[in-house]
Amino acid sequence: MRWKDLNTEACPTARGLSVIGDRWNMLILRDCFLGIRRFDQFQEHLGITRHVLADRLKSLEAAGVLKRVPYQERPLRYDYRLTKMGLDLYPTLLMLIDWANRHLPSEKQSPYGVVFRDTGDAVQPQLYDAARKSPVTIDAIALVPTKDPALD
Amino acid sequence: MRWKDLNTEACPTARGLSVIGDRWNMLILRDCFLGIRRFDQFQEHLGITRHVLADRLKSLEAAGVLKRVPYQERPLRYDYRLTKMGLDLYPTLLMLIDWANRHLPSEKQSPYGVVFRDTGDAVQPQLYDAARKSPVTIDAIALVPTKDPALD
Repeated sequence: MRWKDLNTEACPTARGLSVIGDRWNMLILRDCFLGIRRFDQFQEHLGITRHVLADRLKSLEAAGVLKRVPYQERPLRYDYRLTKMGLDLYPTLLMLIDWANRHLPSEKQSPYGVVFRDTGDAVQPQLYDAARKSPVTIDAIALVPTKDPALD
Repeated sequence: MRWKDLNTEACPTARGLSVIGDRWNMLILRDCFLGIRRFDQFQEHLGITRHVLADRLKSLEAAGVLKRVPYQERPLRYDYRLTKMGLDLYPTLLMLIDWANRHLPSEKQSPYGVVFRDTGDAVQPQLYDAARKSPVTIDAIALVPTKDPALD
């Protein structure tokens, strides 16, 4: 294994975390998935300072997961919306929520859930492989170092 | 929606992030999934100070995702291994890696991949619903506030 590469940009975990590996960023994204779009709503919801919120929204926009869409011209005001890249974080967020519900149970009812739009049924997320077209169990898979073609 | 509950322990995203929402913690867990078990290996691999590493390992053990297993008696030395709770983070990590590979491509080859143990084929993770027994598309689901039974 090329050890020192693991924390460079070659590592997808590190790259992914450079976007979501900050607690505020992920909570802002959770709010976006809940339908929140406006600065003041984020602020009220998160109890975060305007300065920190503005900074995190800017970083999420720069990363490409949020985009600003004007909703008013005078004065100019923006909605913050998930891009395709942002929406594609749904499976990651869903798996995290499912894991926390199972392993870090709370006596309080969760203030939100993930449901199917058509029936309102709770989603019961499971890992699946697109090529095999079947659910994947954890013990069937492994994270393994990539063979370096340059060393062949 | 009960706004102020969202950042308390009722929110599964916040609870989940209290464990993995720290870049070092998630990178340590990535190393565990890669088979790394010993303090010195983590340190070499991550380029992290011994103090910070010891602190993070302790927090991951306290959270229940890692456990210490003695491998030597004199002096006493421990392996750090994923618990069931830790192993269950696989789907979250896998979805994050898949997202980063698609949306944050790198010119460098990833130093690791997720494969099936039996064939070595790359896993192509997809979201699936255990009750419907079918893959889930993002536009079919929604994160929605929970109806508060106390308000009925």
